[in-house]
Amino acid sequence: MKIASYNGHRLGIIDGDDIIDISDLAGVSPEFWPPVGMVKLIAGFEELEATIKERIASGSRLPLKDVRLETPVPWPNKVIAIPANYVEHIEEMKTGTGLISPFKASGQGFFLKSNSSLSGPNDPIIVPNIPGRQIHHECELAIIIGKGGREIPKDKALEHVFGYSCLMDIVVRGKEERVMRKSYDTFCPVGPYIVTPDEVPPHDDINLELRVNGDVKQKANTRNMIIDIPEMICMASAVMTLYPGDIIASGTPSGVGPIKDGDTVSIHIDGVGEMSLAVKGSNTGMHPVWIKDDEKA
Amino acid sequence: MKIASYNGHRLGIIDGDDIIDISDLAGVSPEFWPPVGMVKLIAGFEELEATIKERIASGSRLPLKDVRLETPVPWPNKVIAIPANYVEHIEEMKTGTGLISPFKASGQGFFLKSNSSLSGPNDPIIVPNIPGRQIHHECELAIIIGKGGREIPKDKALEHVFGYSCLMDIVVRGKEERVMRKSYDTFCPVGPYIVTPDEVPPHDDINLELRVNGDVKQKANTRNMIIDIPEMICMASAVMTLYPGDIIASGTPSGVGPIKDGDTVSIHIDGVGEMSLAVKGSNTGMHPVWIKDDEKA
Repeated sequence: MKIASYNGHRLGIIDGDDIIDISDLAGVSPEFWPPVGMVKLIAGFEELEATIKERIASGSRLPLKDVRLETPVPWPNKVIAIPANYVEHIEEMKTGTGLISPFKASGQGFFLKSNSSLSGPNDPIIVPNIPGRQIHHECELAIIIGKGGREIPKDKALEHVFGYSCLMDIVVRGKEERVMRKSYDTFCPVGPYIVTPDEVPPHDDINLELRVNGDVKQKANTRNMIIDIPEMICMASAVMTLYPGDIIASGTPSGVGPIKDGDTVSIHIDGVGEMSLAVKGSNTGMHPVWIKDDEKA
Repeated sequence: MKIASYNGHRLGIIDGDDIIDISDLAGVSPEFWPPVGMVKLIAGFEELEATIKERIASGSRLPLKDVRLETPVPWPNKVIAIPANYVEHIEEMKTGTGLISPFKASGQGFFLKSNSSLSGPNDPIIVPNIPGRQIHHECELAIIIGKGGREIPKDKALEHVFGYSCLMDIVVRGKEERVMRKSYDTFCPVGPYIVTPDEVPPHDDINLELRVNGDVKQKANTRNMIIDIPEMICMASAVMTLYPGDIIASGTPSGVGPIKDGDTVSIHIDGVGEMSLAVKGSNTGMHPVWIKDDEKA
């Protein structure tokens, strides 16, 4: 099943070229602020599934092309991110930069991206105006948590996956705190919708690809991840209670590189979907924190 | 004004030794999940203020001692944390540990703690069972954002402060990703309630104190912070849109140290309040990510 947010926090199921509205099943109206409708829908999904299937069979439909898809979970409890999760990417970052910690990926753990960095498949990536800094793309799979929990054993972890989505982890390169470099507004595009695992290849055999202006920059398969999806859930839930709607960004493969005003960044994940985002420059986002001390003088 | 969460996400105003319920003003019931009532109350506070004052004058009261206070904002958009923010603490962490980045505090930026680490004034701090690791207390002021915004200028920043609260930033010492070390469940006690700025000393002259088992361990005044409160808001909002209910942890002074099962940790902030928390050991929270590579063999 493909579950989407659209047209101002409405909720819908995508079936072929159509979308079927199920906003009324979330227990909260699309106008409710903060936008937690999808979190509620995911939390109640098992009980709602029969009703949703009836709705797909007989509900009124809108052509998908006439709606505006949005980031599927705009206000989760948290967005968890796994650092560099493919050996080749760690090697590329080590080359003279010192940007990667001395830990093996299996010992790095996780960090967080801000909820406010979440954006959708029709939102541009807004590049901040930080002189001399590169903004990089990272191509990642989003794992959306269904059933929450704490201390989830690895062999039960997949039972906690509600679905998958495409995710770009956008980052300002540098040595400042990684969370800050990765939390600008629009630095976490997720979409185009959530796909339940039954429609996706096995978790350890999913192809990902990212292009900039049509050129393939990142290409990987989840079988080459250092920490696999069950281990991500096991590790994160050893530390924190996971809630329905929590998002895990799976860590990037090699091939990261700069994006700039005017570029188009596209991500395709087999069985999960694809989205193409415009990159737009801006005059926003500068702050003295980005000026190196030797330049501050 | 003192605004509290209590008895299962109810909302109340504390007046003397009483609490006056205002749960009905939030626009969502205390039973609603996820618990976003306080976020909604803060977002609508200006419009509700006259009604709230009437309620204080004539509403029904409960003795404060008969209710259970909870963490004031359990599901914000984000919990922003400022790293080491007093020169003396940076010096103590540098001593041979290499734990502090080579950046000056003014160039470090910020990181995030997980929403799920939030706990309240009556919740114990649960210490995970990680062999060989110390769990440290950090004594911090919580700034609760009222009016949201992006690119908030420093000279307008205080207009965006809804109130203050006491906050402990609990952390597993080590070199793994700081966000993971600081995001265990119960690692972000906030409380006992939110106090509006009119009842608190000027933002740059607030005394903080933390005790372990009655002994003073940390003692500071916000005038000695490297990044002051307006600058925190300016910096964070240069990167991210701030929302009503967002929490900023102001960074710790010197004097951090270990806590363990059986300890009592108390925080007192002038004009803001105080809370004493029990520290409890557990058998939870271990994961191989905490084993150093040379021990993994």
